[in-house]
Amino acid sequence: MGASIAAAVSSAGHEVIGVASGRSLATIDRAREAQMTLVETLEEAISRVDVVLSICPPEAALDVAHEVQATGYDGIYVDGNAISPETAAAIGKLFDNNFVDGGIVGPPAWRAGATRFYLSGAMAKDVVVLFADSLVTARAISGGAGAASAVKMCYAAYTKGSSALVLAIRALAEDNGVTETLLAEWDISQKGMRDSSERSALGTSPKAWRFAGEMREIAATFNAAGLPNGFHLAAAEIYERMAHFKNDDPARLEQVIEALLPKR
Amino acid sequence: MGASIAAAVSSAGHEVIGVASGRSLATIDRAREAQMTLVETLEEAISRVDVVLSICPPEAALDVAHEVQATGYDGIYVDGNAISPETAAAIGKLFDNNFVDGGIVGPPAWRAGATRFYLSGAMAKDVVVLFADSLVTARAISGGAGAASAVKMCYAAYTKGSSALVLAIRALAEDNGVTETLLAEWDISQKGMRDSSERSALGTSPKAWRFAGEMREIAATFNAAGLPNGFHLAAAEIYERMAHFKNDDPARLEQVIEALLPKR
Repeated sequence: MGASIAAAVSSAGHEVIGVASGRSLATIDRAREAQMTLVETLEEAISRVDVVLSICPPEAALDVAHEVQATGYDGIYVDGNAISPETAAAIGKLFDNNFVDGGIVGPPAWRAGATRFYLSGAMAKDVVVLFADSLVTARAISGGAGAASAVKMCYAAYTKGSSALVLAIRALAEDNGVTETLLAEWDISQKGMRDSSERSALGTSPKAWRFAGEMREIAATFNAAGLPNGFHLAAAEIYERMAHFKNDDPARLEQVIEALLPKR
Repeated sequence: MGASIAAAVSSAGHEVIGVASGRSLATIDRAREAQMTLVETLEEAISRVDVVLSICPPEAALDVAHEVQATGYDGIYVDGNAISPETAAAIGKLFDNNFVDGGIVGPPAWRAGATRFYLSGAMAKDVVVLFADSLVTARAISGGAGAASAVKMCYAAYTKGSSALVLAIRALAEDNGVTETLLAEWDISQKGMRDSSERSALGTSPKAWRFAGEMREIAATFNAAGLPNGFHLAAAEIYERMAHFKNDDPARLEQVIEALLPKR
């Protein structure tokens, strides 16, 4: 996601600077393809920018923010990560009115109209302009810091939550020896579930390793609202069991089912 | 559901006997409309039948089975309830080879082709014939006692589980003040979710009181397979918060959201 967002900002006429230190070769290659200028250290990058954009796995978001704050940076800080409004608020405190909360919905932005970047907070409109005429549709929304993260949490709560649910159900049917009957029934009364369960396996398996943290952020968001958090704690466990598919080809459903069921 | 199943057996040319004792007037009226012969006591009913069919809220299924066994009944016992394979096995022990496990999928069977009654166990085919040419499609499946319940659990795990999820998400969005943004995003990239969340409220609210027990049976089924049970424990909590809509008109989504969110 980060590379496509950088490419969008670059295509809108801005220089995008990334930090090479501690990154994998694959990440460095993607950054170069996205027209990013790479520098060695965070301090060097910070000295050259007006806006910092954090796009990382959700569990790293707070650490990244602390590292940037520790440099004495006093420009706009945008957190674009899949974090709870509470985590966003904790990050926001580090940057006061310069904090912009972001939530990205959609696939990596390599085609127009597919990816929206919701932004909230006092300076949200200053970030929207960075994406003018780019492949990313940036939208400032009301509600203050936390609102954009809440949109992301609610959105992914269904898409990734229901994918985890359907994969768990396919594993449950297999464990109970009723797969064929369930599929025949779905073909009658829940048309599309057979295909969608197979597509969920292919679509989520390579990314499952980083969905677990996102599911925990969503669970925290439910908890803060006084709603049950079990849907997404369960989804986190499903995705954790699939974490080893990282960097593999998309896994077929049979492989996912094998990963989900305890060995007997 | 029970009345429509009774009507199907009756339409296939069999006498259907029900027990009046302890039932509400509304249940008695539905039973009469379904062409059931009502007798006062369970003992009287048992003395006149070759097949017993239990259709009740899941949490009552085991008690009903024990009551029937206590009469010394030695005919076929069909459990048609939304219970876990483990609960079905516990009931099966009471009736040995005369036990038939059932799982009903679809709405109450008032029109042809909408409702399937899966049946498993040694005598399943003897139960299938009771529904010949009726509005209920009865199907014997392999896998022994427990298989039909497993089909029901897997099926409802998605239908009722995802309905609870989407209602919880609508409540979450409302609590975070981002309902309008979420709906606008759904209208772009998850077409149908706006409508389906509104339909879920109308469709589940009058029945939510009895879904909670079913969700707990599903959670137990996941647990027995070594899969996370949190999806359906959360769904049980959602439906419990909606239990007071029983006997009301279908509730609108705003009413369901109010029921789900803790008072602040």
